[in-house]
Amino acid sequence: MMSAGVRRGVPRIPTMSKTITTLHVVDLQVPAEGLRLASGEYLPAVQVAYEAYGELNQTRDNAIYICHALTGDAHAAFYNDESDTEPGWWDPIIGPGKPIDTDRYFVVCANILGGCKGTTGPGSTDPRTGKLYGADFPLVTIKDVVNVQKRLLEQLGVPGLYCVIGGSMGGMQALEWSVAHPDFVRKCICIASAANLSPQALAFDIVGRQEIESDPDWRDGRYYEKDTTPAKGLSRARQIGHITYLSSKSMNSKFGREQKEDTESIQPSKFSTNFQVESYLNYQGNKFVKRFDANSYLYISRMMDMFDLVNEYGSMAAAFERSKCHYLLISISSDWLFPMAQMLEIVSALIENRKEVSYFQLNSQSGHDAFLIEYDVLGKGVEAFLHDEVFERLPESVNRMDFDLISGMIDDGTHILDVGSGGGELMWALRAMKQISGICIDLDFDKICECMHKGLPAIQLDAETGLELIPDDAFDGVLLNQTIQQLRSALQSIKQVIRIAAAGVVGFPNFAYYPYRFELFLKGQLPVSRSLPYEWYNTPNIHLVTIKDFRELCRRHDIVIGEIEYVSENLFGKILIAFGFVNLGSERSLVKICRPNPNT
Amino acid sequence: MMSAGVRRGVPRIPTMSKTITTLHVVDLQVPAEGLRLASGEYLPAVQVAYEAYGELNQTRDNAIYICHALTGDAHAAFYNDESDTEPGWWDPIIGPGKPIDTDRYFVVCANILGGCKGTTGPGSTDPRTGKLYGADFPLVTIKDVVNVQKRLLEQLGVPGLYCVIGGSMGGMQALEWSVAHPDFVRKCICIASAANLSPQALAFDIVGRQEIESDPDWRDGRYYEKDTTPAKGLSRARQIGHITYLSSKSMNSKFGREQKEDTESIQPSKFSTNFQVESYLNYQGNKFVKRFDANSYLYISRMMDMFDLVNEYGSMAAAFERSKCHYLLISISSDWLFPMAQMLEIVSALIENRKEVSYFQLNSQSGHDAFLIEYDVLGKGVEAFLHDEVFERLPESVNRMDFDLISGMIDDGTHILDVGSGGGELMWALRAMKQISGICIDLDFDKICECMHKGLPAIQLDAETGLELIPDDAFDGVLLNQTIQQLRSALQSIKQVIRIAAAGVVGFPNFAYYPYRFELFLKGQLPVSRSLPYEWYNTPNIHLVTIKDFRELCRRHDIVIGEIEYVSENLFGKILIAFGFVNLGSERSLVKICRPNPNT
Repeated sequence: MMSAGVRRGVPRIPTMSKTITTLHVVDLQVPAEGLRLASGEYLPAVQVAYEAYGELNQTRDNAIYICHALTGDAHAAFYNDESDTEPGWWDPIIGPGKPIDTDRYFVVCANILGGCKGTTGPGSTDPRTGKLYGADFPLVTIKDVVNVQKRLLEQLGVPGLYCVIGGSMGGMQALEWSVAHPDFVRKCICIASAANLSPQALAFDIVGRQEIESDPDWRDGRYYEKDTTPAKGLSRARQIGHITYLSSKSMNSKFGREQKEDTESIQPSKFSTNFQVESYLNYQGNKFVKRFDANSYLYISRMMDMFDLVNEYGSMAAAFERSKCHYLLISISSDWLFPMAQMLEIVSALIENRKEVSYFQLNSQSGHDAFLIEYDVLGKGVEAFLHDEVFERLPESVNRMDFDLISGMIDDGTHILDVGSGGGELMWALRAMKQISGICIDLDFDKICECMHKGLPAIQLDAETGLELIPDDAFDGVLLNQTIQQLRSALQSIKQVIRIAAAGVVGFPNFAYYPYRFELFLKGQLPVSRSLPYEWYNTPNIHLVTIKDFRELCRRHDIVIGEIEYVSENLFGKILIAFGFVNLGSERSLVKICRPNPNT
Repeated sequence: MMSAGVRRGVPRIPTMSKTITTLHVVDLQVPAEGLRLASGEYLPAVQVAYEAYGELNQTRDNAIYICHALTGDAHAAFYNDESDTEPGWWDPIIGPGKPIDTDRYFVVCANILGGCKGTTGPGSTDPRTGKLYGADFPLVTIKDVVNVQKRLLEQLGVPGLYCVIGGSMGGMQALEWSVAHPDFVRKCICIASAANLSPQALAFDIVGRQEIESDPDWRDGRYYEKDTTPAKGLSRARQIGHITYLSSKSMNSKFGREQKEDTESIQPSKFSTNFQVESYLNYQGNKFVKRFDANSYLYISRMMDMFDLVNEYGSMAAAFERSKCHYLLISISSDWLFPMAQMLEIVSALIENRKEVSYFQLNSQSGHDAFLIEYDVLGKGVEAFLHDEVFERLPESVNRMDFDLISGMIDDGTHILDVGSGGGELMWALRAMKQISGICIDLDFDKICECMHKGLPAIQLDAETGLELIPDDAFDGVLLNQTIQQLRSALQSIKQVIRIAAAGVVGFPNFAYYPYRFELFLKGQLPVSRSLPYEWYNTPNIHLVTIKDFRELCRRHDIVIGEIEYVSENLFGKILIAFGFVNLGSERSLVKICRPNPNT
């Protein structure tokens, strides 16, 4: 049904016109001898093409730098022209009121060194010879790329970044920024990336470069003059790349084994197939050849292969020793090119260095490309991390009694891991009460965002299996409150607690609490109550435990018990506790556990 | 330390000399008009190269056919020459006393149609023209390949196969055998394969063929006459293939990001790297070019892409409707080219058709190639499946009381699924007592082998998540004995039971049994006993349940309860049950559950 006010036949006036941005091209100010590269070679002149959105504020501390991926460019958001049908490549999350809010931040994105979209690269003219560089362009690195970005920002009057953000090879640049220029960066978001490429990813790049180099039209990189381009080689390199950017599942749902309907069309060869995936790959390859330069592809893909923070600094932990920013790392569940395990290695190294690190996994079937697709979750996480407003007070629902008891068991100014943190209420309160630092762990993405909004580093991890990634002694204390009874392997988790820190506080519901005992004894059914609110078949509390059982476990495994707090909110329970019947009167308990002293 | 009897300096005499086999080449007997192919074209003459080991027995029912993969050949085992350093490609599992026991079976393996190792292919001479076929060789299919194999076997006097076995593209041939020639095959083993290739795997093949076709030395397939070969293209196609045969983890452990030590060697180009993975890929590519023909690669890889039982028969279930053999499907945990999910789709279709199907997963980090590496587990599984000796009697440890009670709840001749079957003792007894058929499910590989040794189809599956793959009403009854209390989601599993079959028998320990109640009530600790032998923190019994709780659950979710058996092995318990105190007196219980009758 049409609404009353709409008149037929009258063309609708668009309510918003396109926001137009301009690609700026500037000459970078370099020393007289040229820009020194990591290889020791010099580039006599460097041009940089960039776009900028929003305004730099008075205090000049609201700049965000966007690092683009392998084949991206400076056009990150908005439109370059009224006639454009597609906006910039990250437009859904950059703009007024969007997660990277241009009303709030000054956002800059430049084409990388070695590229073919306005910044100096193999297709540029060498001022020393007056000829196009071709394969005589020096080999460049991520370090060089970031150096050029930093010089550009300084030239634009930006003394430091509020945040640097990048996905894939852009994430490598963001990591390089954070370790090479620690005083320049306050926050760093690294998405679907790694501190170095896996051998599998290397292998695909290696074959891709061979494609281009074996194309007779490549002519050792001097094809510009001949007005040819190694189209077939570059197309196949892109096709291989494209397969790695998708997941097997996303290819299943995109194409399956569907055949083209037009079966009459002439096959390019006897061995071609009619599968849609074949025409899709050919289409993607041909489209890419029109927009990208083969030499730039060689330089940039090799640059990505050679990036290696582990090798450069000696170890992953050493690489992040001097960084000062708060990190947010985001992996993609179906990304096999930059798998989650590689991101978690960085998380682990940052924890070892007692840095601020947040992490979540983007659940998506879209593979590596998800960082250009799944904007809802990505945007929510990025926004929570960027806008860490000061959080003012705890919600009413919070159990302040337990908070106070736990606070009494924690030393001032220590470094704490809260396993099963929820939205970080306890950590927030402890930070206010005891000036602690630390990290929250929870499995729920929304809770991770709540923590980040409170300015708390938060890691999305399964307490059951994920604690292994945390190095020994990474914390002074671990909180495991109301979580242990939900774990398959409670003993393993307790052992993890006193491996990660010298002491921990474990809180759990006491199944020997007198109303529970009566219920099973008299009624022959498992108790359902306020503190055990589930049915037997759906309870997450899979390992019921009593205070006596817990003590027994600690005794058997040489775990030292410090203070114990017995909690009951019921008068009769309190009386039982007062008379020493703690296992009968406690609804729950908080137990401080420590490693056995090796000297005793 | 040297042992006393060994004299220095005296060369050791090898205790066993190599077993030598011969490659036989025979002319296939074809009709005068030639061999009709699936495409409708004819091949005027077909030569087949094969090897055979062992002896065909008197009853001619001990023949096993081995199907080789994409680039394999007829030389499956032993040595062709005393000077050979490497035996045939599957030698570790074929031979006297090995899983495919040549003392017991007559084993045949032939090079496939379209190949380049002795069987007719694009490198053969077309008798009609006297010229080499090249790309004029007709397109062939897996169906044609299997037809040639069947004609060969008939020519060798083999009237039927005890088993057909293959991995990867060999697994496709095994599946084709089983559905196209159901009366010829008694058993079928399909390893790391699929009923059709995933779009991701297709995509890699598509790029691989383009490599060869774009190589100027391919010359539209007529390179034989010019004495050239499309070496670069074939090498890159192989390199891409090779990456897909490994897993990311195996590449990590094989190469990591190690660089060649010899850094002085001249790089083939500015854009090459020193990574070991680059020289490994080049080595593999060059080695392959020496042993394989580019045209054969085109024909065979396209044949693999076009194989599609789902498309041919209309659906996966329809494809397996007429098959008669007992299947063993084996997937590899780290295989991303032929992922587990594709194998499980076949398992599901076979279950739907009430066929005999066994399945297990080979846990390996070696990727797709694991079927050529992990011989211990593979061999054990294959042997258990092949040697299903008649099993004579149950071990003494078996609880015959429960068997008898369950037997009383099952109808004669029905089709039963036993979830959490262990080594199949219950199913074996039920088959003997009640002539049932059915399938065992267990998570433990060794238990799966025990079942297969008893001739029972057995599937390695997690009862928690795996039941979803079983189609509705695939069975007449489901047994879920002593398993439900170990599942995270007991309700979901019960719902699965009455989805899969109209009725099921659920057996569980009763937590309201009087000694347990007393222990918690009086001692304030969780009970540990003969039937609950675990501590609270390590028990697999994560959802404690009482008979009353179980009844209540069924009532709430409209699950109809049939018979209930109350079991106690203790006199006082028996007395309590006799007086009607079943929830107090039963140590465990067996409950028959059914779907609600829709008419009432």
